[in-house]
Amino acid sequence: MSEVSIQAERLLGRLSSLGAIGRGDDGRLTRLAASDADRAGRDSLVRWLEDAGLEVAIDRIGNIFGIWRPESVRDDAPVLLGSHIDTVIDAGIYDGCYGVLSGLEVIETLKSSGWRPSRPIAIAAFTNEEGVRYAPDMMGSLVHAGGLSVEEALASIGIDGTRLGEELRRIGYAGEREPGFLKPHAYLELHIEQGPVLEREGLAIGAVETLQGISWQRVTIEGVANHAGTTPMSLRHDAGHAAARVITFLREQAVAADTPSVATVGSLRFEPNAINVIPARASLTVDLRDPDEMRLREAESALASFLDELARSEGVAVSVERLARFEPVVFDRGVVDRIEQAAGRRGLPCRRMTSGAGHDAQMMARIAPSAMIFVPSIAGISHNPKEFTPDADLLAGANVLLDVVRSLTAAG
Amino acid sequence: MSEVSIQAERLLGRLSSLGAIGRGDDGRLTRLAASDADRAGRDSLVRWLEDAGLEVAIDRIGNIFGIWRPESVRDDAPVLLGSHIDTVIDAGIYDGCYGVLSGLEVIETLKSSGWRPSRPIAIAAFTNEEGVRYAPDMMGSLVHAGGLSVEEALASIGIDGTRLGEELRRIGYAGEREPGFLKPHAYLELHIEQGPVLEREGLAIGAVETLQGISWQRVTIEGVANHAGTTPMSLRHDAGHAAARVITFLREQAVAADTPSVATVGSLRFEPNAINVIPARASLTVDLRDPDEMRLREAESALASFLDELARSEGVAVSVERLARFEPVVFDRGVVDRIEQAAGRRGLPCRRMTSGAGHDAQMMARIAPSAMIFVPSIAGISHNPKEFTPDADLLAGANVLLDVVRSLTAAG
Repeated sequence: MSEVSIQAERLLGRLSSLGAIGRGDDGRLTRLAASDADRAGRDSLVRWLEDAGLEVAIDRIGNIFGIWRPESVRDDAPVLLGSHIDTVIDAGIYDGCYGVLSGLEVIETLKSSGWRPSRPIAIAAFTNEEGVRYAPDMMGSLVHAGGLSVEEALASIGIDGTRLGEELRRIGYAGEREPGFLKPHAYLELHIEQGPVLEREGLAIGAVETLQGISWQRVTIEGVANHAGTTPMSLRHDAGHAAARVITFLREQAVAADTPSVATVGSLRFEPNAINVIPARASLTVDLRDPDEMRLREAESALASFLDELARSEGVAVSVERLARFEPVVFDRGVVDRIEQAAGRRGLPCRRMTSGAGHDAQMMARIAPSAMIFVPSIAGISHNPKEFTPDADLLAGANVLLDVVRSLTAAG
Repeated sequence: MSEVSIQAERLLGRLSSLGAIGRGDDGRLTRLAASDADRAGRDSLVRWLEDAGLEVAIDRIGNIFGIWRPESVRDDAPVLLGSHIDTVIDAGIYDGCYGVLSGLEVIETLKSSGWRPSRPIAIAAFTNEEGVRYAPDMMGSLVHAGGLSVEEALASIGIDGTRLGEELRRIGYAGEREPGFLKPHAYLELHIEQGPVLEREGLAIGAVETLQGISWQRVTIEGVANHAGTTPMSLRHDAGHAAARVITFLREQAVAADTPSVATVGSLRFEPNAINVIPARASLTVDLRDPDEMRLREAESALASFLDELARSEGVAVSVERLARFEPVVFDRGVVDRIEQAAGRRGLPCRRMTSGAGHDAQMMARIAPSAMIFVPSIAGISHNPKEFTPDADLLAGANVLLDVVRSLTAAG
């Protein structure tokens, strides 16, 4: 089944073209959702969809669909290949775009090879996956899956004070289709790993079987500010020292667990933050992730117990605010199997793995059998101009996507 | 010798008057060195000195002296009673002012009691002790003691971009006397403790025999920023976690030492300081203090070894910048003995102790036998509007100062 392959130049050329849209005078790439740069990127994508002879549909939240619906299978649910083309600030060219353009490449390859699919094949570019300009992230797919009303999403106020609904109208991408109009038979998302695992293990393909659950909390510790020279150690209520103990506790827990659990304190502030004053207050964020919901709950619970003990032993007040919480996602075993088999047939070394980042696929998994295909990210770098995946890996991933689509649309 | 005592109302009234000068519309007290508010405070002090019949002298760095020089002892070196009247931002009314005004009170009391001193008695208000507007702190006494040239000090650029020399001229306190013109026979500084020890132990007087050495360093840790979700714990180079280990190490060392050593991390910054990014960089300050120079060096050396090990074990780069270093000061045993004896004669419970904060006395100790008298600070609070010492303690401290001055100026 591997005799057909995608056209390397066409896919790589489009990735490069799309990556050139939205660059500022300083050369930095930024296509925030519903911005002028996003409009320019969308316009290019729609032109390519039309050139490929696909039916273009845009829904009220601005999600763009390109649908190949042969006469014979007109009414069946499609195999949907999606991701996003909005970016973070100062982005690389692969995150999201690689999945959307590979989906288009797969459809064009199949069309020109004379493939007669048993059901429609479609691609989707979901609005505002990154969530940089408007909250929440993964918004277009969340609305598509029914997890957020389109009215609420359109009312989202951006970091620049704009309203998403008005910005979508302004750029000409407030469509008329009702979100969720396209119910997929299956959903596939091809994406760069954004982590170091595949490169480190020398693998070409990740068959993503789970997506980590995420728990975000803000911990605020109130101690007592005092003179750094005149306050004996035994009389201190040092909010900064208490915060440091939270950080070392989380590391020890995560390392001792010997599981895929990760824990990160990425943000920390002291007050008054002066060299000779014992910190009165420390505010830190805790990012816990685990592909297993039970373990994630245990990690949350261990932290809560530790914070109780900390408050007592340090004589500080500790308060916790929940910032975000997503349960882990388990992708469809049948689809994951097909990815692994497709990689094997192409001789590509592959492993089953967990996605540490959030993706549109986790929303689509609510309404259709879904899975993801990962390709290596050099040094695990993403959300950064240094984001890079070698061409050979990009092409390998697209060919695996092609083969999985063929297996899902082969005539019974 | 204790039949004479200072006049409570006069001292407390002046403390209150001076504490009313330099309050903003919000009621907060701020008299930064060489500001308009400092001028107003200085003008009041000089008026009081003149009213008391003292000879007023101002030197080139703006230090104010009030000298009682009876005809019979004209040429002898004076007993000098000093401190400062500049304040931090949002200050209390006691820090510094209490020592200067008590010195004046002592001279007036002795004059009116018919005391015939064996040598002159003088008070000093040193410029820019707090160091908030201009660096370094304790500047006026440092220049007086010959530790910094007056030209260099006057060239200091403030946090508001002003030059100290020009500001002193502007407020009329760029005097003509050469700094150091007054060589004291002995130097005494009465001050609030700014720490919790006296109150906690129920004591009225601290006979300060040593002043802690201070070591200030900035530690910068460079790790690798990465995605909080996709980077396994074992592959992290987390600058934030490394910083937390520095904090917990310093605490453990200081507590285990069972000495007066203190260690504080008051200031810490993460970069990029985002909830879902492993910190690439952490910058923290380390404040180490110890009254014993050998122990202070050991603490510095233990930190350096720890940082070496940290760089290896965490895979981070660590650099250290020295910000300030003062050796401990040992005050004059004879003067300290007199303080203890004076407290005893007044029935005031007293202990020998260490000053955790820096004071003008540490500079004056370079050129004259010196010591300090401490009175309790409620809850150890200072540099804060809540700074408070009960009137009875204020008066007790001033009477001990009076008695020590009498013992130092008694006719042979």
